[in-house]
Amino acid sequence: MALSIDSLPVAPQRLFASDNASGVHPQYLAAIAQVNDGHVLAYGNDRFTREAIDAFKSLCNHDVEVLFCFGGTGANVTALSILLDRAESVLCSRFAHIAVDETGAPERILGVKLQTVDTDDGKITPADIHAAALQIGNVHHVQPGVVSISQPTELGTLYSVEEITSIVDAAHRYNMRVHVDGARIANAVAALGGADMFALMTFDAGVDAVSFGGTKNAMLNAEAVLVASKFTANRGAYLRKQSTQLPSKMRFIAAQFSEGLSSGLWLETASAANSAAMTLYNSLIDISSLSLAQPPVNSLYPTLVDPHKSDLQKWSFFWDWDLAGGQVRWMTSWDTTSLDISRFSTGVRHVLTS
Amino acid sequence: MALSIDSLPVAPQRLFASDNASGVHPQYLAAIAQVNDGHVLAYGNDRFTREAIDAFKSLCNHDVEVLFCFGGTGANVTALSILLDRAESVLCSRFAHIAVDETGAPERILGVKLQTVDTDDGKITPADIHAAALQIGNVHHVQPGVVSISQPTELGTLYSVEEITSIVDAAHRYNMRVHVDGARIANAVAALGGADMFALMTFDAGVDAVSFGGTKNAMLNAEAVLVASKFTANRGAYLRKQSTQLPSKMRFIAAQFSEGLSSGLWLETASAANSAAMTLYNSLIDISSLSLAQPPVNSLYPTLVDPHKSDLQKWSFFWDWDLAGGQVRWMTSWDTTSLDISRFSTGVRHVLTS
Amino acid sequence: MALSIDSLPVAPQRLFASDNASGVHPQYLAAIAQVNDGHVLAYGNDRFTREAIDAFKSLCNHDVEVLFCFGGTGANVTALSILLDRAESVLCSRFAHIAVDETGAPERILGVKLQTVDTDDGKITPADIHAAALQIGNVHHVQPGVVSISQPTELGTLYSVEEITSIVDAAHRYNMRVHVDGARIANAVAALGGADMFALMTFDAGVDAVSFGGTKNAMLNAEAVLVASKFTANRGAYLRKQSTQLPSKMRFIAAQFSEGLSSGLWLETASAANSAAMTLYNSLIDISSLSLAQPPVNSLYPTLVDPHKSDLQKWSFFWDWDLAGGQVRWMTSWDTTSLDISRFSTGVRHVLTS
Amino acid sequence: MALSIDSLPVAPQRLFASDNASGVHPQYLAAIAQVNDGHVLAYGNDRFTREAIDAFKSLCNHDVEVLFCFGGTGANVTALSILLDRAESVLCSRFAHIAVDETGAPERILGVKLQTVDTDDGKITPADIHAAALQIGNVHHVQPGVVSISQPTELGTLYSVEEITSIVDAAHRYNMRVHVDGARIANAVAALGGADMFALMTFDAGVDAVSFGGTKNAMLNAEAVLVASKFTANRGAYLRKQSTQLPSKMRFIAAQFSEGLSSGLWLETASAANSAAMTLYNSLIDISSLSLAQPPVNSLYPTLVDPHKSDLQKWSFFWDWDLAGGQVRWMTSWDTTSLDISRFSTGVRHVLTS
Repeated sequence: MALSIDSLPVAPQRLFASDNASGVHPQYLAAIAQVNDGHVLAYGNDRFTREAIDAFKSLCNHDVEVLFCFGGTGANVTALSILLDRAESVLCSRFAHIAVDETGAPERILGVKLQTVDTDDGKITPADIHAAALQIGNVHHVQPGVVSISQPTELGTLYSVEEITSIVDAAHRYNMRVHVDGARIANAVAALGGADMFALMTFDAGVDAVSFGGTKNAMLNAEAVLVASKFTANRGAYLRKQSTQLPSKMRFIAAQFSEGLSSGLWLETASAANSAAMTLYNSLIDISSLSLAQPPVNSLYPTLVDPHKSDLQKWSFFWDWDLAGGQVRWMTSWDTTSLDISRFSTGVRHVLTS
Repeated sequence: MALSIDSLPVAPQRLFASDNASGVHPQYLAAIAQVNDGHVLAYGNDRFTREAIDAFKSLCNHDVEVLFCFGGTGANVTALSILLDRAESVLCSRFAHIAVDETGAPERILGVKLQTVDTDDGKITPADIHAAALQIGNVHHVQPGVVSISQPTELGTLYSVEEITSIVDAAHRYNMRVHVDGARIANAVAALGGADMFALMTFDAGVDAVSFGGTKNAMLNAEAVLVASKFTANRGAYLRKQSTQLPSKMRFIAAQFSEGLSSGLWLETASAANSAAMTLYNSLIDISSLSLAQPPVNSLYPTLVDPHKSDLQKWSFFWDWDLAGGQVRWMTSWDTTSLDISRFSTGVRHVLTS
Repeated sequence: MALSIDSLPVAPQRLFASDNASGVHPQYLAAIAQVNDGHVLAYGNDRFTREAIDAFKSLCNHDVEVLFCFGGTGANVTALSILLDRAESVLCSRFAHIAVDETGAPERILGVKLQTVDTDDGKITPADIHAAALQIGNVHHVQPGVVSISQPTELGTLYSVEEITSIVDAAHRYNMRVHVDGARIANAVAALGGADMFALMTFDAGVDAVSFGGTKNAMLNAEAVLVASKFTANRGAYLRKQSTQLPSKMRFIAAQFSEGLSSGLWLETASAANSAAMTLYNSLIDISSLSLAQPPVNSLYPTLVDPHKSDLQKWSFFWDWDLAGGQVRWMTSWDTTSLDISRFSTGVRHVLTS
Repeated sequence: MALSIDSLPVAPQRLFASDNASGVHPQYLAAIAQVNDGHVLAYGNDRFTREAIDAFKSLCNHDVEVLFCFGGTGANVTALSILLDRAESVLCSRFAHIAVDETGAPERILGVKLQTVDTDDGKITPADIHAAALQIGNVHHVQPGVVSISQPTELGTLYSVEEITSIVDAAHRYNMRVHVDGARIANAVAALGGADMFALMTFDAGVDAVSFGGTKNAMLNAEAVLVASKFTANRGAYLRKQSTQLPSKMRFIAAQFSEGLSSGLWLETASAANSAAMTLYNSLIDISSLSLAQPPVNSLYPTLVDPHKSDLQKWSFFWDWDLAGGQVRWMTSWDTTSLDISRFSTGVRHVLTS
C-alpha cells in the first residue's frame, strides 16, 4: 500500500529530477544584463560574440570554429551536419541522447542513419568502430562516417583521455570523424581534473567536433558547437541556420559563455553538482537494495521498485530510467544544497524502511 | 568621392539596421529573474509555461495549441510541419522570409517544396491560390497544402482582416491550410488597432497556425507557435522537438510572454517602433530622391545609391534591401529615440545635399 | 594452402549467389513483347495496368491500392511513406533489408528512424512491439508508427499466419501499422501452401501494406506495393513519384504481373527455387561442419571458413553472410537445375574433403 | 457546340500525346533477350554493364562515371545528389522538369531548395547565374550550388554549344556545377548535328553531369547518369542506391544502351521523332490560329481553345500545356508514321474549319 505523502519528512526544496530543472546562475543573468545596452548587429556580428569565440579558442588550445546555439539537440544536429559526408551514418551507443532522446531529429533533419552499438556502460570502443568499418565499400550499406560519443555518457560514466584517443585513432584510420556530445562536458572536465582537461580530452586528442553544453550547467538556453578548423569549408554557419539554431540576439548567449569561461564559474557549478551527487551517494551507500554505484559525475541510477518508487516520486519527483530493469535516475544540479541532500536521503530511507 | 565620416554630424546611438539589433526590454529581464528561483520541471512542465499558454489562449479567443520556441526560423518550420500533409507544397510570396531568408531550412527539414508567387507588395491573393489549385490531382505535381503569408510582409505592408479572410476562404476551399508568419505580428496588431485585432486577423479569420514573434519585439530569444485546436492530433510537440526547438528551460521564454501579454508591453514596444518609423518618414519626406512611402509598420525602403549609400552605411550601418533596384532598408525598434531619429535624418540630409 | 581451381570438378552453369543473378523467365519477356504494340498513355493510365491491378485485388481478397514500382528498395520506401505519420519510427528486425541493405534510403528519403529489434531468427514478436510502445507519449522519443516484417525473413525463416496475426494485433492495439517486405513473398506463399495463403498471411490478417517482389522471382525489374484501402487518402501515387518509382512505361511492368498471376507462373518459379534449395540441403546434409538447417525457402546459410570458403567462391561465386560468424549464403533461383545442384554439391564435397 | 467524334476522319493509330506513350523498339527487346541467358552477378557487376559503360565513355570523350537508373526523376535526383554540396540550392528554369513535374522529389529526397529563374523560352542565361551569385556569402541565403539546364528544354527549345559553354563558364566562376537534364538529349543531339555533338555540348563544354534519357527514346525503363570523373569521390553509386535507383538486374538496362550506342539506333529513333514533328508542322503551318513555331525537336505547342481543343483531345488524346495561355502540346515519337501525321493534321484541319 502506498504511503501518504503527509507522513513523509519535509521534501527538499530543489528536485533531484534533472540539472535542467534548476534555474540560471545569477552571474549569468548579470552577464546578460551587462550586454543589453544599445544596439549591436544581430546574428553574432558583434564584439560580445567575438570575445566569447576567443575564450573558446583559448580553452580548446586550437583554432576551432565556434557556433553558438539555442539548445542541445540543435547543437548536436549542427555538429553532425558539419562532419557528415554523402551516404554516411553516425555510429553511437544505444543509450546515446542523439539516438534515444531527440525524437529522431538527426534522422529527420539530416536524413542520416544512426547505427547504435550495444554497450552496458554507455561507452563505445575501438572494436565497435572496427566492426562498423566492415561495411566500407559495400554499396548496399550506408558508410560509417561519424562516431559520436557522449562525455559523460548518458549513464554517467566517463571516458578517459586515453580511451578517447584510441577511439579517435580507430575512427581516423577509416576516415571517420569523431563528435563529442558534451551536453554535460563541464561535469566531465571538473571530474577529471579541471579546465586543462578539456583540450586534452577533445581537440588535443584529435576530436573533430564538440557540442558544448551550457544549459544544464546553470546557463539560460545556451549551447556551443566547436569544430576543428579543418572543417571550415563545410559551411558550418549555414548549416547551423538550416538547423534553425542561429540566434538573432546572439550576444546574450555569448555573454554567458564569456562570463563562465573567464571566471571559472562553468567548472564551479559543475563541481558543485558532482560533489552533491557524491554526498548523496555516501549518505545512502549502506542501503544495499539501491545497488548504488559511485557517481563519476552528477547522477545516480538506483534500483527502486514500486510502491517505494512511486511514493518517493510523488514526494519529490525524479525520472524513471529503465522501466524494465527497475532503475531510476537521481540527478544533482549546480544549486543542490546540503539541506536538499539530507532531506532527500532522509525521505528515501524513510520510505525504504517503512 | 566618398565623404569622410568625420565630417558627418553625430551618429545616432542606436542603429536603424534591424529590430534584431536592439536589446531586451528591462521588464523582460525582470520577468526572467522573477521565475529563476528554485527548480521546476524542464521542457514546459511548469506553472509558468501553463500561465503563458493561458495568456495566449485568451489573446487568440480560441483554444489553440501553444508551442514556445527559441527562434523564428524554427517556429516557422515547426508550424509548417504541423500543417503539412503528405506530398504537399507551401505557397508563399517570392519575398517570404521562409523562401528567402531561412537558408533553405524548410526544404532541408521538411523536404517540402516552397512555391513562390510573384508579387510586388509582398502580399499574395486568392487568385494566386486558385492558380496553384490547378495542380491538384496531377500526380506529377506536388499538391499545394499550406498557404503561408507574412503579417506584416517582408516589404512592411499589411494585410487587412478582410484580405486575410479571403485568403483563408480560398485556401480552405481547396483543403489548403493557412499559416501566418508573424515574426513582427505585434507591429501589425499595433498598426491595425490594438490587441483585439490579433484574434480578428488570425483565428477568428480561420487562420490555422501563427508564428508569433517575440525576439524582434524586445524579448530574449522567444517565439511561439500557435495552432488551431483541430490540429491537436498532429503531434505538434514532437515536431517542435524534431525541429530542435524544444527549450529545456522553457520557463524563461514563457515568463516573457506572460509579462508582455498581461502588461500590454508587447503592443507598447511595437507601437513605439511603428511611431519611430513614421517620425523618420515625416522628417525626410521632402527629399524626393529617397522615394519614401509612408510606413505601415516599422520599416522604410528608401532609394539610395552610392556614394551616398556607402557613406551613410559607414556612418550608421543599415542593410541593403534590393541591390539591383537600389533600395535599402531603414528599420526602427522599440528603443529608437527621438534623438536617434533626428540625428539620423540630419546625417541623411547632410550626405544627400553635400 | 588454397586449392587450384583447375583441380576442382566442373562448376555449375548457374550461380548460387542470389536469385538476383538469374535472368528473366521467357514467359515474362513474351508478356512484355505482347503489350509493346502501339501507343498507350504513360504512367499507368492504360488497360494493361488496370488488368494487373485487378489481378492483384483478386489475389489479395481485398480492395487494395496497387502501385507498380521499379525496384525493391523503392517499393519499401513507397510503402513506408504511405503508412508513416508525423514524428514516427519504423520498428524492424536488426537483419531487416530496410535497415541493413538499402544504404540508408529510408532514413534519407523519409527522414525516419528505424528502430531495430534484437532477434536471432530474423523474426520480431509481439513482445518487441509492447516494448517499443513504452515510448508512446514521451515527447523526447520518436513514436513507433510502423512495424515492418520480412516474409520470408532475411535469414530465410518464415512467419506463420498465426504469428503475423499476433503481430498485427499487437501493432494495431497501439495504432501502429504493419508492413510486409515481400521481396521474396512468392517463396513464402509457395512454401506455406499456395496462392490462397497470400491473402491469409497479409490483408486477411490485417496487414496494412505489402512490398510484393517480382524481380527476384524471374521478372524484369518489376515490383508492386499493395496498400489496404483505408490508406487511400494518403496520396500513395504521389509518394511513389516522390520516391522516384513511377514508371513511365508502366505497361511493361504490369504485363509481367498479369502474366505471372494469371498463369500461376509466380508460384511455379518460387516453388522451383524452394525445391532446389531443399535438394541442395539433402545432398550435403551429411557434412556436419556445414551446420546446415533445413531451408524453409530458397537459401542455405552454411558455416564455411577459409581456405575452403575462398576456394569455393573462386570456383562458383556466392556471398559471405556473416563474416564474424563464418557463415555464407547459398541461394537457389527459379532456373537452378538438378545438374547445377549436383555439380555444386560435388564441388563443395571435393573442397571440404581435400 | 462540341463535334461528334464520329463525324471526324479516322484517328491516327499512334497518339501525339508523348514519346512516353510509345512502346519499345524491337531492337531493344532483342538486346534484352540476348543477355538473358544464365546467371551474372546483380547490381551491375557483370560484363554487359561494363560494355555499356565503355560505350558511354567513348561517346562522352571523357572518363565519366556511368550510373544506370530506372527512371528520369531518379536519374535527376541521383545526378544532383552527386553534385550538390552542403547548404546549396539548384538553379533552374521555372519550366524545368525537376521543378514542375517531379512532384517535389528533389526537395523531398535531397532537402534542397530549387531556385527557379524566370524565362520565356525555357532557357537560362549567364545573367541568371550572376544574379543568383549575389546570394553567395550571406548566411541567411541558401548558396547556389548547381545550375540545372534541360537540353532540349521543356519548351522544345535548344541550347547551342556556345550557350552551354557560356553557362558553364559563368557557373564555374562561382564554383557552381552544371547538370544537364537530358531526358530527350538524343533529340537534341540529332537536331544539332549527330553523335559527335553529344560530347561537344556536354563534357567537352565543361558540363559536370548529365541525365541521359533512354525511355522516351524507345527503350524499356532505361536511363543513365553520366558524371565527370572529378566527382568520383562523391559516392555516386551509394547515392544512386539511396535514391532507390540501383537496378538489381542491371544487365537488361545496360544491354539496351549498348545496342543503341553501338548501332546508332539512339539517333535514328530521335531523328525520326524530330522529322515527324517537322512534317506535322509543315502540314499545318498555314493555319495561323495555331501560332505554330518551327519545332527544333519533337514537340509543337499550338494555341488551341475549346471547343476545338476538347473535340480533338477526345478524338486523339494530347496534353494541355498551359491552361491559362491556351497552349497544348503535340509530341511525336520514334514510331510516328506519315499516315499518323496526315490523319492527325486532317483531323485538326477538320475541327478548326468546321
